[in-house]
Amino acid sequence: MNSSVVRYTLGQVLKIEAVLLLLPCIVALIYKEDQGIYYVLVATMCAFLGMGMTLRKPGSNIFYLKEGCIITALSWIFLSFFGALPFYLSGEIPSLTNALFETISGFTTTGASILSEVESLSRCSTFWRCFTHWIGGMGVLVFLLAIIPIGGGSQINIMKAESPGPSVGKLVPKVRSTARILYIIYFALTIIEIIFLVSGGMPAFEAVNTAIATAGTGGFGIKNDSIAGYSAYLQWVVTIFMILFGVNFNAYYLLIFRQFRKAFTMEEVIHYFAIIFIAIAIIFTRIFRTYDHALDALRDTAFQVASIITTTGFSTVDFDKWPAVCQTVLVFLMFIGACAGSTGGGIKVSRLIILRKTIIKEMISYVHPKSIKKIKMDDKPVEHEVVRATNVFFITFVIIFSLSVLLVSIDGNDLVTNFTAVAATINNIGPGLSMVGPTQNFSHFSGFSKYILMFDMIAGRLELFPLLMLFHPELWKEMFAHYIRKFSNSN
Amino acid sequence: MNSSVVRYTLGQVLKIEAVLLLLPCIVALIYKEDQGIYYVLVATMCAFLGMGMTLRKPGSNIFYLKEGCIITALSWIFLSFFGALPFYLSGEIPSLTNALFETISGFTTTGASILSEVESLSRCSTFWRCFTHWIGGMGVLVFLLAIIPIGGGSQINIMKAESPGPSVGKLVPKVRSTARILYIIYFALTIIEIIFLVSGGMPAFEAVNTAIATAGTGGFGIKNDSIAGYSAYLQWVVTIFMILFGVNFNAYYLLIFRQFRKAFTMEEVIHYFAIIFIAIAIIFTRIFRTYDHALDALRDTAFQVASIITTTGFSTVDFDKWPAVCQTVLVFLMFIGACAGSTGGGIKVSRLIILRKTIIKEMISYVHPKSIKKIKMDDKPVEHEVVRATNVFFITFVIIFSLSVLLVSIDGNDLVTNFTAVAATINNIGPGLSMVGPTQNFSHFSGFSKYILMFDMIAGRLELFPLLMLFHPELWKEMFAHYIRKFSNSN
Repeated sequence: MNSSVVRYTLGQVLKIEAVLLLLPCIVALIYKEDQGIYYVLVATMCAFLGMGMTLRKPGSNIFYLKEGCIITALSWIFLSFFGALPFYLSGEIPSLTNALFETISGFTTTGASILSEVESLSRCSTFWRCFTHWIGGMGVLVFLLAIIPIGGGSQINIMKAESPGPSVGKLVPKVRSTARILYIIYFALTIIEIIFLVSGGMPAFEAVNTAIATAGTGGFGIKNDSIAGYSAYLQWVVTIFMILFGVNFNAYYLLIFRQFRKAFTMEEVIHYFAIIFIAIAIIFTRIFRTYDHALDALRDTAFQVASIITTTGFSTVDFDKWPAVCQTVLVFLMFIGACAGSTGGGIKVSRLIILRKTIIKEMISYVHPKSIKKIKMDDKPVEHEVVRATNVFFITFVIIFSLSVLLVSIDGNDLVTNFTAVAATINNIGPGLSMVGPTQNFSHFSGFSKYILMFDMIAGRLELFPLLMLFHPELWKEMFAHYIRKFSNSN
Repeated sequence: MNSSVVRYTLGQVLKIEAVLLLLPCIVALIYKEDQGIYYVLVATMCAFLGMGMTLRKPGSNIFYLKEGCIITALSWIFLSFFGALPFYLSGEIPSLTNALFETISGFTTTGASILSEVESLSRCSTFWRCFTHWIGGMGVLVFLLAIIPIGGGSQINIMKAESPGPSVGKLVPKVRSTARILYIIYFALTIIEIIFLVSGGMPAFEAVNTAIATAGTGGFGIKNDSIAGYSAYLQWVVTIFMILFGVNFNAYYLLIFRQFRKAFTMEEVIHYFAIIFIAIAIIFTRIFRTYDHALDALRDTAFQVASIITTTGFSTVDFDKWPAVCQTVLVFLMFIGACAGSTGGGIKVSRLIILRKTIIKEMISYVHPKSIKKIKMDDKPVEHEVVRATNVFFITFVIIFSLSVLLVSIDGNDLVTNFTAVAATINNIGPGLSMVGPTQNFSHFSGFSKYILMFDMIAGRLELFPLLMLFHPELWKEMFAHYIRKFSNSN
């Protein structure tokens, strides 16, 4: 176990957080808000701690997947802890548990809130709350990889741990260039959305916040009624950009390099749009009669479907009041999630395609027991290792999901609340149904349940194993052994 | 594809059904009921059809897993269809869909009923209804294997398709002897239960019906209040026998041959009892305060836990009114199910043990990527093939489950009803929660939903793939090709 590279990278992450925390400080300066001081304070803390941890370069730059997992899991926990401090210190979220919940919900792009009232937040806190989505969407370590040279060939092990999807889609041979390209596409799309929103009459501050929350497929609203109060045009803009941020970024890369044919035949992207289309069709036919204008029904349907499948979690209507079949479709979309290599959460469309092909392959093996056909995707064979990992991911997902529902049910809420609260957090969506419906919030849960849901949010964002690795006793033994050796050597 | 062996075996199954249908005829004779005539009628139909189909011996006795699956799936569909006819013809269940639902629910040992009132059924129909559980519990093809020599070495492919569990546990090298031993244990345990029930004062007719419904872990009650009206002693007897029929029958085999050490250290059986103990402990601590006597609370808790985990589905209280955490525990037990190699349904304890070990193995592979340790069970390595099949089973299970919930939700019932209706049928339990709770029934579903649930019951009992194989186009092509060849040859 290369413990020094873990320490060093965590230090770098804290230094980045220090810089990021200066952005809400600027917002506080612009709007002359006192709360800015807490952001300066925490930024300074992060900077000092980060510098202390990066004083000594790691002995070796080589590390493996286990270090990649540990770095990623600890980074997200550190980030969330320090990111929560300004909310807590400023008293805007008086309970540390709640502040942590809100921040983890932000970084993991969940958007589940414990606040019943968001419009009274200071502007700098509103911005920081939405900005955590933007950071978490593409990943803080991917950002780190894009700007700082660490680890050489080992970088891929961080990318593997932080990037969503069954296999890491390196766009170009170099991890660093891949990370840069991803962030450039991400940044450009965000700017374009801001332009569209501002040109539709949305105030600049709101446009920036809405765009970064869309980009990360997060879903923290800056209004108490989420996006419902905005014009039809603005709702359509948000709908379209939610869908765009749920697309596999590889497709954009292919588009930029004019490989249109390849981009438009990506199996995952085709399935993603097909699912969106079918979901809209089912829900629309069920609800359009309750509207005066069919176009309004279509807008509400498209918005909700886009918001849930991309795991953003904005809302414009209270779908907790929709017919059961519409709710069931939405719960389905919660689990399907967006494309791999996007900023969205959930199981991911490509995983479900692989699972479907696994089942078909099993059936074929009953008929032709000796057949050894490989599963294919985009006409390329999928590595056996990826298929196996996808299967194990799905199994682990279902089991963590079920155990979480069991633990959260101790609070005594109804089954739908417990089921959808866990579904909305582990899939990084935000709202669920019943007591966690779009007009409700998560504040009524016990502290214990909140920590379970926080675990689910990080587990969902990091796709389970990086976080689970933290509970692997052998890793801790190795880590302790390292420090004990170091200590005894220095004596 | 060996089509003639499919035809021949189906014919044998129909002949067996003809014989089995004579049992309710005897009941009708004893109690002088007119409905007996319909049982004679259908028995005659089955006998003639069966004889017709077995006139010509199959050309070859050799067949493979695909034929085993097709034989099993078609046998269960044939059995259910003819088994439903007496209910329908006698007018006791006037709708054919409902009669089919009730019979499939019987054979698959589900015990989900469309009858709101069971006490008005004739005695012969009451007996037939419960007796379908006993036939389905151990399996009609296992019975066939025990009495008729078919297929030689190929018999194992029928056993594989019909017997529950991740791998076929052949007790002795010969399939036929294994099938006989299983039926002997099954029969003996049923008789012992009848003796215990009668000695507790239960009338003989009720004792027989209750015992055969317990043995198959079925759950059709013969009283409108299921088992609630019986004495505490009788409830405890049923509780204990439900648990006993949920144990892997391998354990009994080991006990008979005095291999006590091996029997008591079977990993699956230990886990099974541990889960029962934990579930009782959780529920008991939540509900005992609402009772005057703790022992009553313990009896109710133990009964419900045993009934659900063994997927029997009897009830003595309306657990739909229990606190949410108790309901969540019960929903968990629904999916866990009993041991492999028992008469119970659900995912099966041994599969969950394998899945847990798969996840741990995955975590170890992150730390030691080159480790190739095999998963072990009862100190023996589990074949890679079994692990893979278990993973695929679980994935297929979750996907069929989810799609069924989606389709059933079209009826417009609440989410808990849809979720637990599918859970109660695919796991072969019987009652669920809300509108399919223990005091409710399944009659209110639309015809479409009923067929979905019937599919789920058979899919659950046959553990998915044998039934799914029926939808494999290649098999039908082969079958047609066979008959077309035959037809052109005879011209």
